[in-house]
Amino acid sequence: MVYSETVEIRGHILDSGTFARVLDDVLEYSGDYRIEKLDVGRTHTDESYVKLTVLNDDHEQLDRIVMRLQTHGANKIDPGTALLRPAPHDGVFPDDFYSTTNLDTKVRVEGTWIKVVNPEMDCGIVIDGEIARTIPVSDVRAGEQIVCGINGVKVTPLPEPERGDPSESSFEFMTSEVSSEKPQALLVRQVAEKMRDVKARGEKILWVGGPAIVHTGAAPALVALIEEGYVDVLFAGNALATHDIESALYGTSLGVDLDKGHGVPHGHEHHIRAINRIRAAGSIADAVSEGVLRSGVMHAMVNKGKQFVLVGSVRDDGPLPDVYTDVIDGQRAMRRALDGVGFAIMVATMLHSIATGNMLPATVPLVSVDINPATVTKLADRGSAQATGVITDIGLFCEQLASELVVGYKRD
Amino acid sequence: MVYSETVEIRGHILDSGTFARVLDDVLEYSGDYRIEKLDVGRTHTDESYVKLTVLNDDHEQLDRIVMRLQTHGANKIDPGTALLRPAPHDGVFPDDFYSTTNLDTKVRVEGTWIKVVNPEMDCGIVIDGEIARTIPVSDVRAGEQIVCGINGVKVTPLPEPERGDPSESSFEFMTSEVSSEKPQALLVRQVAEKMRDVKARGEKILWVGGPAIVHTGAAPALVALIEEGYVDVLFAGNALATHDIESALYGTSLGVDLDKGHGVPHGHEHHIRAINRIRAAGSIADAVSEGVLRSGVMHAMVNKGKQFVLVGSVRDDGPLPDVYTDVIDGQRAMRRALDGVGFAIMVATMLHSIATGNMLPATVPLVSVDINPATVTKLADRGSAQATGVITDIGLFCEQLASELVVGYKRD
Amino acid sequence: MVYSETVEIRGHILDSGTFARVLDDVLEYSGDYRIEKLDVGRTHTDESYVKLTVLNDDHEQLDRIVMRLQTHGANKIDPGTALLRPAPHDGVFPDDFYSTTNLDTKVRVEGTWIKVVNPEMDCGIVIDGEIARTIPVSDVRAGEQIVCGINGVKVTPLPEPERGDPSESSFEFMTSEVSSEKPQALLVRQVAEKMRDVKARGEKILWVGGPAIVHTGAAPALVALIEEGYVDVLFAGNALATHDIESALYGTSLGVDLDKGHGVPHGHEHHIRAINRIRAAGSIADAVSEGVLRSGVMHAMVNKGKQFVLVGSVRDDGPLPDVYTDVIDGQRAMRRALDGVGFAIMVATMLHSIATGNMLPATVPLVSVDINPATVTKLADRGSAQATGVITDIGLFCEQLASELVVGYKRD
Amino acid sequence: MVYSETVEIRGHILDSGTFARVLDDVLEYSGDYRIEKLDVGRTHTDESYVKLTVLNDDHEQLDRIVMRLQTHGANKIDPGTALLRPAPHDGVFPDDFYSTTNLDTKVRVEGTWIKVVNPEMDCGIVIDGEIARTIPVSDVRAGEQIVCGINGVKVTPLPEPERGDPSESSFEFMTSEVSSEKPQALLVRQVAEKMRDVKARGEKILWVGGPAIVHTGAAPALVALIEEGYVDVLFAGNALATHDIESALYGTSLGVDLDKGHGVPHGHEHHIRAINRIRAAGSIADAVSEGVLRSGVMHAMVNKGKQFVLVGSVRDDGPLPDVYTDVIDGQRAMRRALDGVGFAIMVATMLHSIATGNMLPATVPLVSVDINPATVTKLADRGSAQATGVITDIGLFCEQLASELVVGYKRD
Repeated sequence: MVYSETVEIRGHILDSGTFARVLDDVLEYSGDYRIEKLDVGRTHTDESYVKLTVLNDDHEQLDRIVMRLQTHGANKIDPGTALLRPAPHDGVFPDDFYSTTNLDTKVRVEGTWIKVVNPEMDCGIVIDGEIARTIPVSDVRAGEQIVCGINGVKVTPLPEPERGDPSESSFEFMTSEVSSEKPQALLVRQVAEKMRDVKARGEKILWVGGPAIVHTGAAPALVALIEEGYVDVLFAGNALATHDIESALYGTSLGVDLDKGHGVPHGHEHHIRAINRIRAAGSIADAVSEGVLRSGVMHAMVNKGKQFVLVGSVRDDGPLPDVYTDVIDGQRAMRRALDGVGFAIMVATMLHSIATGNMLPATVPLVSVDINPATVTKLADRGSAQATGVITDIGLFCEQLASELVVGYKRD
Repeated sequence: MVYSETVEIRGHILDSGTFARVLDDVLEYSGDYRIEKLDVGRTHTDESYVKLTVLNDDHEQLDRIVMRLQTHGANKIDPGTALLRPAPHDGVFPDDFYSTTNLDTKVRVEGTWIKVVNPEMDCGIVIDGEIARTIPVSDVRAGEQIVCGINGVKVTPLPEPERGDPSESSFEFMTSEVSSEKPQALLVRQVAEKMRDVKARGEKILWVGGPAIVHTGAAPALVALIEEGYVDVLFAGNALATHDIESALYGTSLGVDLDKGHGVPHGHEHHIRAINRIRAAGSIADAVSEGVLRSGVMHAMVNKGKQFVLVGSVRDDGPLPDVYTDVIDGQRAMRRALDGVGFAIMVATMLHSIATGNMLPATVPLVSVDINPATVTKLADRGSAQATGVITDIGLFCEQLASELVVGYKRD
Repeated sequence: MVYSETVEIRGHILDSGTFARVLDDVLEYSGDYRIEKLDVGRTHTDESYVKLTVLNDDHEQLDRIVMRLQTHGANKIDPGTALLRPAPHDGVFPDDFYSTTNLDTKVRVEGTWIKVVNPEMDCGIVIDGEIARTIPVSDVRAGEQIVCGINGVKVTPLPEPERGDPSESSFEFMTSEVSSEKPQALLVRQVAEKMRDVKARGEKILWVGGPAIVHTGAAPALVALIEEGYVDVLFAGNALATHDIESALYGTSLGVDLDKGHGVPHGHEHHIRAINRIRAAGSIADAVSEGVLRSGVMHAMVNKGKQFVLVGSVRDDGPLPDVYTDVIDGQRAMRRALDGVGFAIMVATMLHSIATGNMLPATVPLVSVDINPATVTKLADRGSAQATGVITDIGLFCEQLASELVVGYKRD
Repeated sequence: MVYSETVEIRGHILDSGTFARVLDDVLEYSGDYRIEKLDVGRTHTDESYVKLTVLNDDHEQLDRIVMRLQTHGANKIDPGTALLRPAPHDGVFPDDFYSTTNLDTKVRVEGTWIKVVNPEMDCGIVIDGEIARTIPVSDVRAGEQIVCGINGVKVTPLPEPERGDPSESSFEFMTSEVSSEKPQALLVRQVAEKMRDVKARGEKILWVGGPAIVHTGAAPALVALIEEGYVDVLFAGNALATHDIESALYGTSLGVDLDKGHGVPHGHEHHIRAINRIRAAGSIADAVSEGVLRSGVMHAMVNKGKQFVLVGSVRDDGPLPDVYTDVIDGQRAMRRALDGVGFAIMVATMLHSIATGNMLPATVPLVSVDINPATVTKLADRGSAQATGVITDIGLFCEQLASELVVGYKRD
């Protein structure tokens, strides 16, 4: 059976986004809706009016949706009269108590609308004669009359801030957040699935990576993914390749460091020696064929015959001979390599992520993985709206991705 | 004179928020609109259709608005035919070149719609016979035919992600960001103005503060604001009061530290001695009247006869005798002190900010100031939608606020 | 065979920490040392002098150590004369080129010390007649004379900043960093090993946790660890227990949210209903025995008969009936529960981590895990010097820890 | 009068840095020292021994220093016997109570050393017959015997972690932190003073800046500083110059945005139009002389005849015609411009800061200003040890710097 309630809202609900939020919340709470009436304010000074029927096959859930919509100023057309029940014990509300918002609220008791004197969120409402006030659960006494359910309650939303008043409006863009508080194990699995699909369709997977791939110990996992065919194109800068090669060439000392969990000592000159060795060989591929470079990410890319585009930056040492020092030439090379790419994953790099995001058509799905929320946000801010962000640890992310995609992958 | 263009959009534009974004962008770009037609999809599976006239008294600005709306899939009803102009020099577009999005794009040339082969944002479109492609400004050659203006261009927005597919949708909440990249000097002035207004109305100003007020050297500014009457109520924890009193009691050594810019050495026992001294006196007010405590924020509050509520936390040392150790008692004391508060400012504290935000009616405006964006975001996330966030340096913020509000304020 | 070089340093090398850094670097680079002579400046205005022999069984590595020590101002007693080799190609140094620091540097060529005109780090030194200058690898031309090895090179370290000049010295505390760029998979394994050891010794494992354990999807992993006996005591606040219980009670809706990767909608009233249900039952244990609470972290703790201490904070809703609302009472309960604890792990909580760190003897090893470096740093800053910090994703961390410790653990 | 105490330490105190920390702490606490005896462990397996006299002209301060040194394991040669005093009231210690560390501690009472059973920091020690235990101030009862002063107390420091055990040692690098909790107003004044000195010496001031200078509203302050002669050379990327020029060319709309506190709308095409305009003019200087560019940072630099070096990056749009697209050419241009630079200030840019830090001799003082601690830390980590970091808001920082340096500076 499907239950329904009809609510209405009036105001500047179209350009303020309120109406969109109402519909979105209904769906988010697994409800459904039917728009009964929509009187559109034709210009931005006119108010609009919506009458909306909300549907759900669970009665309690329907009540919750309606409570939720109240926070946007959508009230029941026929609010009815408040149901009052006594608190069963000190410090305990009745089970179906009305949970308050911090907005102006009125309660209809015996046909009269009473204003709640002290709006506060996450409280109950106690009715004491003709007085209605919020009460925190810890302060309620057994027997006090508590408003239950959603009938007979009406809230008035805040007026929309006037456009052009920044101190009022500048916070609106903060109502949501890039959060690291997500079930990441699930996201890893979803990325893995995407990659399998893309491969199955014969499209290419593009990786864009920063040097933290090496520092966080993610390189072995990435090598496994390269060997298994999950890396078709790699975009990076001088740093990723240099640290990877440094790790391959000065295995013992740096290997020890990585195994010990220490970072590379500051001022360390290994990276500049590594660069010099590859410059002497002529190119990374030459260093592989001469047997100078025998392991690591770049070695795996060369060995599998995969394409990489390294573009330099002003802070580079060296750079490696394969690095485009002219950034416009580098952009051209990246554009050429985008052909056939069906999925892009960006790991631990802001500069090259944004550069790639600038070039990718919006139709190519894109995942950005970083422990720093700013990297992920900036990408979306620059217009790569198709991006999915994962705020997580690079090392553990690549480790788990390899476990999902590479049969028998087990790090030593 | 007012220019106008009529555009249309079709799709799930109501619950997806697309329609709200279109209207918002028109206003944001200082245009105006008239809704000509709105066919509402009654349920969430039905598509809606909008026909919208966009108005502006500047023709060029109108073109920009229409280009902007294209990114949401709103195209001109009568797109016309593309205007082509030759690039004036190598590496230079004509002045009014069409600036691309990364969405699927078509151009109408001589009556035929041609698909742009390689969508990329922030480029121009070059027409070469029957081929249309994006070109970055650095690659254009003199004489190439470049699409100019907005006629004859149509873009197709991305399909809305299906509800329930998190990897598609989880990024949507990231399209905006809490940013420290705002003109902060302006925000300080706006806060100052608010405070003057509130005071003029006879309402109280509530401050909620963390210990960083002392560490960042903001205490002298806050003392000046207290003395000038801009602090009616102060909510804080044990830490703010302790560090403030420690600074007052052990002036020389800690004063030197603060003046030198060094933090308090770890394991420092001054704070526990400061607490012990106040415990011996009986209360902060007693310590003031006995002459033990002679300067600082708490001293100024006592001297001006202003109210403070200190509520403890599990990590407290001591605590000071004035601190509520029972957090529910503390909440009750805070609620009592909210009476008459017309404005709240929260500085450098997450715990007490959220506690206060939980209690404040939505009608009390609230400014949260912190160098850490997370503090500000969490507050809004918990439902304090009336909050304005300022991501800035506490020390400089209070310094400038005192300069605005306290005549002759000059830090020594 | 063991190679050796003797170096000397003079200056305020004891209280400045220079001497300690020299010895530390020798060991860090797997060298060894013998102090030949140490003339101690008796007071802080006297200079000290050290003569030190550095030992290593690899000649090239010894050279690197000596180069490294030069950055601290330790130069060879007998510097010899610089070895010059021609650059083999344009853009390539000889293999054993001397890699520069950014300090003042002199080179001895044919018996004369020449000052390098433009010190710059990570370059080579080219000798052109009587001129010595740094040159980046990209600018070297074939045949240019490049200084190789470590002979004949002397650097002068920066003078120590004078004590009391903050603008000079305030940066010194920044020379190292809390970094997320570590091989985390390795750290997980080390934590697992510690836990096994502690259990084997019959000591208790203390967990201190924040609500992000639930948000990040780490709860199932933590439940597995509880059931396997790796959680003897749990310290937390109202939030962890509430979100955990909310997830257990409103499984479907919230379960869906967690599975979908969406956060809990703001203003959601489920948590306050969850609290009310447990308050009605009387306690968490009562809710378990009545069958109201059937899954989750708190359920697992009750079922295994393990101890938890929940201490409230000023921002709490409710709280749950088990929560200490008096923080000093809460501290006492925590202290009592510390008996027998041999290892502490703190996950995603700053408030309770610091509270626990305040109480723990320094002899109890302590691991702090958080995606936010500030949490980990603050703990150490407050004096918990025995702490090990892991900056990583909580969800993936717990997942991997459970995989290491619980045989057959596999998340559904 | 000068008071003194003699302490001793034994162990691996040289390479562990313990000895350096002891000396540093003495000076930090404004004491002085005399090394009475230093038996050096010649190799890294030998223990060393130090006997040290600590001096101070304030007796109480001397006691505090000695307590502080105890945390490093330095104990008094002649510890004497503990002084016991009764607690004056419930919850209050005697004034000179001994404040505990969390290390193993012994107290000598009546000739016998008693072990404190429960080490906990920031507590007092109560002696109850033959039992010594820590007690928090809130739990002490009037009359209980509390250890006072420093006599008769001995602590045992933690053993140094063994080299090569990462889980033990990986936290050591976190004992200090890049903090935003500093008195920033003071730092601004120090930077201003440095700049005046450098100018007085006839040396150049180098600025390295990122685009946030424009976003945060700092551009007018920077223009004032340029006009006053405090900017001799400017290093930046395409973004700073583009946003500055965009702001100058599209004054009305973007001006409004900046004044309103809104960021530039995403996908905004103004920046690419601004670039195109300057490309059409030929160069920034040409645009100034043609009257196209009439305000802003770049305009001021051209007008004052000051030098700027713009070096591109892979994410650039355009770029502006003055931008070096080849990063190695860009580095060369930067190196040439370093001649005569006596002071460098880096504002809100990681990429160009590190690039400049790589090139600067260590003798050039360098201040890095950013709201993001990571930028400042990375600079030091790369070897620019002469850097001073200021974690603050860019907009307010530049505003205050201009107020200090430019007479009559007042933002409109």
